Amino acid sequence: MPYYIGGVTADWHQLVARTPEEFKRSNDIDVLIRHEVTAIDAADGSLRVRDLASGREFSDGYDALLLATGATAFVPPLPGGDLPGVFTLRSLADGLALKRYLDERRPQRAVIAGAGSIGLEMCEALRRLGLEVELVEAAERVMPGWDSEMAGSILAELEASGVNCRFGSPIDGIASDSRDRLTVEVAGDSLEADLVLLSLGVRPATRLAAAAGVELGAAGAIRVDRHMRTNLTGIFAAGDCATVRHLATGEETWIPMGDAARRMGRVAANNLLGGDDEFSGVAGTAIVKCFDLTIGKTGLTEEQARNAGMDPVTVDLTHDAIPEYLPGYTQLHARVTADRGSGRIVGAQVVGPLGSAADKRLDVLAVCVGARLTVRQMEDLDLGYAPPYSHAIDLPITAANLLAPKLR
Amino acid sequence: MPYYIGGVTADWHQLVARTPEEFKRSNDIDVLIRHEVTAIDAADGSLRVRDLASGREFSDGYDALLLATGATAFVPPLPGGDLPGVFTLRSLADGLALKRYLDERRPQRAVIAGAGSIGLEMCEALRRLGLEVELVEAAERVMPGWDSEMAGSILAELEASGVNCRFGSPIDGIASDSRDRLTVEVAGDSLEADLVLLSLGVRPATRLAAAAGVELGAAGAIRVDRHMRTNLTGIFAAGDCATVRHLATGEETWIPMGDAARRMGRVAANNLLGGDDEFSGVAGTAIVKCFDLTIGKTGLTEEQARNAGMDPVTVDLTHDAIPEYLPGYTQLHARVTADRGSGRIVGAQVVGPLGSAADKRLDVLAVCVGARLTVRQMEDLDLGYAPPYSHAIDLPITAANLLAPKLR
Repeated sequence: MPYYIGGVTADWHQLVARTPEEFKRSNDIDVLIRHEVTAIDAADGSLRVRDLASGREFSDGYDALLLATGATAFVPPLPGGDLPGVFTLRSLADGLALKRYLDERRPQRAVIAGAGSIGLEMCEALRRLGLEVELVEAAERVMPGWDSEMAGSILAELEASGVNCRFGSPIDGIASDSRDRLTVEVAGDSLEADLVLLSLGVRPATRLAAAAGVELGAAGAIRVDRHMRTNLTGIFAAGDCATVRHLATGEETWIPMGDAARRMGRVAANNLLGGDDEFSGVAGTAIVKCFDLTIGKTGLTEEQARNAGMDPVTVDLTHDAIPEYLPGYTQLHARVTADRGSGRIVGAQVVGPLGSAADKRLDVLAVCVGARLTVRQMEDLDLGYAPPYSHAIDLPITAANLLAPKLR
Repeated sequence: MPYYIGGVTADWHQLVARTPEEFKRSNDIDVLIRHEVTAIDAADGSLRVRDLASGREFSDGYDALLLATGATAFVPPLPGGDLPGVFTLRSLADGLALKRYLDERRPQRAVIAGAGSIGLEMCEALRRLGLEVELVEAAERVMPGWDSEMAGSILAELEASGVNCRFGSPIDGIASDSRDRLTVEVAGDSLEADLVLLSLGVRPATRLAAAAGVELGAAGAIRVDRHMRTNLTGIFAAGDCATVRHLATGEETWIPMGDAARRMGRVAANNLLGGDDEFSGVAGTAIVKCFDLTIGKTGLTEEQARNAGMDPVTVDLTHDAIPEYLPGYTQLHARVTADRGSGRIVGAQVVGPLGSAADKRLDVLAVCVGARLTVRQMEDLDLGYAPPYSHAIDLPITAANLLAPKLR
């Protein structure tokens, strides 16, 4: 949606992967939109459903039920959090409302609260539309879930792109004057704005499940086993509402990501239909484009590895994307963490300009984390080498070469 | 060297990774260039060395010896194979000689014999310099070591770039007139040329080793174990002269690649110095840029898998590089092969335009092959997803999703 809002993608219909009509036509699946399930009777295998258009309520039954209720934007208890001009960005409806506000009201000045992925993407979208943008973050740096070593270059890119950044600045409240002009209170300062975006994270949508007696797990998400089964017979869950197993730790966690949701959905579908499929888990891979910079992570940060009881060993390296003697020469930075106990790579963070293939190099590292490769195994990675694409020894192998002596 | 010859890289000194002086200064290693080892006495631990400049011969001794003699260009017994204007491209000296010939003689018309990686790279280099280029291949297609399904798009790129291609056309001989104008005899036709490049593959350089009693293995390369030890105590080998273990088959093979040579050299160095390091092997990954196309492979082709006694199952797929709703939208093609018996991915071939990140997607597939992942494990790959970089389900996962039902 940031690309639709920023005008890169002209038609929001392109963002809809499949319509109800396409589900019906391709797979003979009936999709009821604008219908809310208000209650589940797990003993009985029945649902209460409300048609939101007509208000009519009715019962429906199931042999197998998938909870795919997703996550919702987190909005803290905040004076003025629901004022006109204050937005979150989670659903397509959120995106359309924000776009309409931009088109109709032509705001000049935006405050974005929260310097995570959505916050960074929206900085770019709103700057592209010519707005003044102030990014406000409660923590002391951008991407606070990442190691602090990565924050400097991201901040530099934001500032070079005209984004004003404030850290250690939680939002205390928002007020509005008679002309819908907003004032955002942050850490003793008042910021004027025509538009406020709250990008403060998401929470699993579990009210329906919890009321039905479905057990919750990490971060309050619906606890599922590797078959995507909940504690209640015949009830499965998948996607942003459900827990996952972290491949680097083996522990239950909650990492809501759209791509993992798809993979979980596939496993759940196989099992809903009577199969015996297992989802192995996630490596916690995430990537975001921030202006001309690619930022990505997989696995654990050094801090997360330490918190998980590991003995983390980390290298920071700057690596040529391609050899210096070819046009398009650029470099990227990576931070790669291994666990001394197991000798395995447990995480990596990358940052580099768009032309540095930081994204796909992250994917190589993500496969290594997910496949639980040791640093020694990574030293032998057989990656494709020709000068237009990399040096003979590419970043993931160099990182392993640097980690190996530190692990001994 | 193709990029230096084609004028992309101005100074050949940039192609020299390290000079003898740098070896001395950085690592206190004495490098004797223009010195040929003419004989090894393994029983005695001694060498005969000839100083090629002075002709002086002398003896030297070793505690541990590394054979890193590499490979040499293959030139079949061919009338006129040594005429002026006929080149191979293997050593830096070859590249400098070819460049000098281009600068001094300004040839207009080139015949390139052999449509492998070097042949394709040199088509691009010579077209860039404005030469007419005719590519002549004995087999019935470009990249004959690859599955035939990949050849069509490579051929289309060559032809669109003005390269004339002839297949089923082995070179029978080369003749020269009094003005050094060359005539190349191929399959009954005579082709006029001012320059002929023979890019017909390489062979391991093992004469010295064999004369010393070192055992040879696959393709006549020096047989080494995982420690890079030969059959003779204290003598190691690494790089293009040595055999390797193929990770997909577990068998000894010979796949001379510059990047694998570096990894093998590292293991050999550790063991020369008394360590106990093991090289796991190679996945057979290779990549080449051919004009605006990226072509890569890893592991086994379908045919190679069948020849190795596997029951190969292959999918061909065309995949969006990024979503259609973003600028820079393009697609790439992949062919991915699994083994029904083990359920493992055993090979992949990719072809796509430069902007399709075919290179790094190949790397993801190469890690999967090297780590011996099953197709089911590949379905759960946790790759980085954001729209500027890929769909939520990227090519390697889609390939696994398509392979999975075929394996059942």
